[in-house]
Amino acid sequence: MKPALRLTQASAPLTQQVTVRDEFGDERSVAIPAERALTVFVDNRELVTLMTLGAAPELLVLGYLLNQRLVESVDDIDSITVDWDVSAAAVKTRAGIERFDEKTAKRVVTTGCGQGTVFGDLMGELDTLRLPPVDEPTARLSQSTLYALLNVMRLRDSTYKSAGSVHGCALFRQGELLTFVEDVGRHNAIDTIAGWMGLHGVSGADKIFYTTGRLTSEMVIKSAQMGVPVIVSRSGITQMGHELATRLGLCLFGRASNRHFICYSGFARFDAEPEPKRPV
Amino acid sequence: MKPALRLTQASAPLTQQVTVRDEFGDERSVAIPAERALTVFVDNRELVTLMTLGAAPELLVLGYLLNQRLVESVDDIDSITVDWDVSAAAVKTRAGIERFDEKTAKRVVTTGCGQGTVFGDLMGELDTLRLPPVDEPTARLSQSTLYALLNVMRLRDSTYKSAGSVHGCALFRQGELLTFVEDVGRHNAIDTIAGWMGLHGVSGADKIFYTTGRLTSEMVIKSAQMGVPVIVSRSGITQMGHELATRLGLCLFGRASNRHFICYSGFARFDAEPEPKRPV
Repeated sequence: MKPALRLTQASAPLTQQVTVRDEFGDERSVAIPAERALTVFVDNRELVTLMTLGAAPELLVLGYLLNQRLVESVDDIDSITVDWDVSAAAVKTRAGIERFDEKTAKRVVTTGCGQGTVFGDLMGELDTLRLPPVDEPTARLSQSTLYALLNVMRLRDSTYKSAGSVHGCALFRQGELLTFVEDVGRHNAIDTIAGWMGLHGVSGADKIFYTTGRLTSEMVIKSAQMGVPVIVSRSGITQMGHELATRLGLCLFGRASNRHFICYSGFARFDAEPEPKRPV
Repeated sequence: MKPALRLTQASAPLTQQVTVRDEFGDERSVAIPAERALTVFVDNRELVTLMTLGAAPELLVLGYLLNQRLVESVDDIDSITVDWDVSAAAVKTRAGIERFDEKTAKRVVTTGCGQGTVFGDLMGELDTLRLPPVDEPTARLSQSTLYALLNVMRLRDSTYKSAGSVHGCALFRQGELLTFVEDVGRHNAIDTIAGWMGLHGVSGADKIFYTTGRLTSEMVIKSAQMGVPVIVSRSGITQMGHELATRLGLCLFGRASNRHFICYSGFARFDAEPEPKRPV
């Protein structure tokens, strides 16, 4: 058995109070989300600086490395040490990263935010991604379970509720919430979930991914990489997100809250239980 | 007089119809925003791939080069040729870009979206940025003009209204709308405005910048680079956005719609006309 991955637990305060003025001319104090620079060093080489809320920085770094395909598995990493005093995450690998320069040389901007960065050739990997069959009961979602999931998210306490301006991501097994994270960026949030899955050896095949952010190409690609066949979003969709999900057979729900939603793709994974229509 | 910059006008359809299912089990057609890859080549060297709605790709590329400080002014560029058939923008400079490799080597992730990219050392340039004095009448905003500006945005037709999932940006001179653009990413939208300003030789000193996106560090830095002293956002703020704006004396309004807003920083530029409070 390999020695366990060693992680610090350097979470930091998630909100900050600032003094503002409102339309009544009143001065008051409001909470805003914290935002910290975290520079990632891999075996003493600088890789990237992430701007993060700082809720779970070690899982963020782990998920980032996994999702960017810089490491193959958690076993490749010896330790991740986050020190906010120097705004740095030091990653120590067990055997180095092969072709480090090559893997980090190609900059592709793939995100719905328009200028995010993905290293390497994720699009080229698409055809190697396999989601579970559509008739697998755990890789489907019924309308009532979708409602249950949305209700769990609605009732949950969050930085968003107290300070706004963050994106939340959650991982569900049907209606059961497994983990939830928020960050100033939705890509960070999904990477943190990937880190959590990697750390705990959790497979994506029977999971459902919830995000407050839009269903962009990057969200769809990352979800597929993680093997998760269903994504639920409070927001809408972009064309690339739609195209990729359709190609992958990934089931996308958008505009989802309370008892409303739009299923954009992957209808074969959805067990509809249509709402009765009110008489006009 | 230098010869004018030559630009194609390769705008493309902004929405696409897709078939979806809703909570009533109905199949229907909805519009979603288009999203296109646009790979930017500068003097035949590949620079970056942007994912864009495609409303004004030439201005996007121009603004991107200006905001990333890869060119100093519009005069450095001979032509920008966008060809959607090959998803490429070919930029021809007049005299090449000095230190191209050096300028594009440093990857800093500065955005509220969490993993956007800014080349070079924008933060290091902060102290060289100068906004107009706070007592300059054109570099201030009154509460009634803020309302007028919000009303212009409210009445405007947009891709957001028809298809959702895009960010809008606009440039105002007090309550007068000068230009408006939408994109799948808010960074693209602000870059496109920068391109418009560069092309028309418009200064930022007496302008107000409106965005539907959050007030993140990157938005604040880009606005300051463009010399714009006031930003109005429909959304909230992040800590870095707040810190930088406070340091720069930039006036930030967030959560702004109808007659509601929060002024987060730069109070000295704001002429309050407080709303009467309703009796409780």
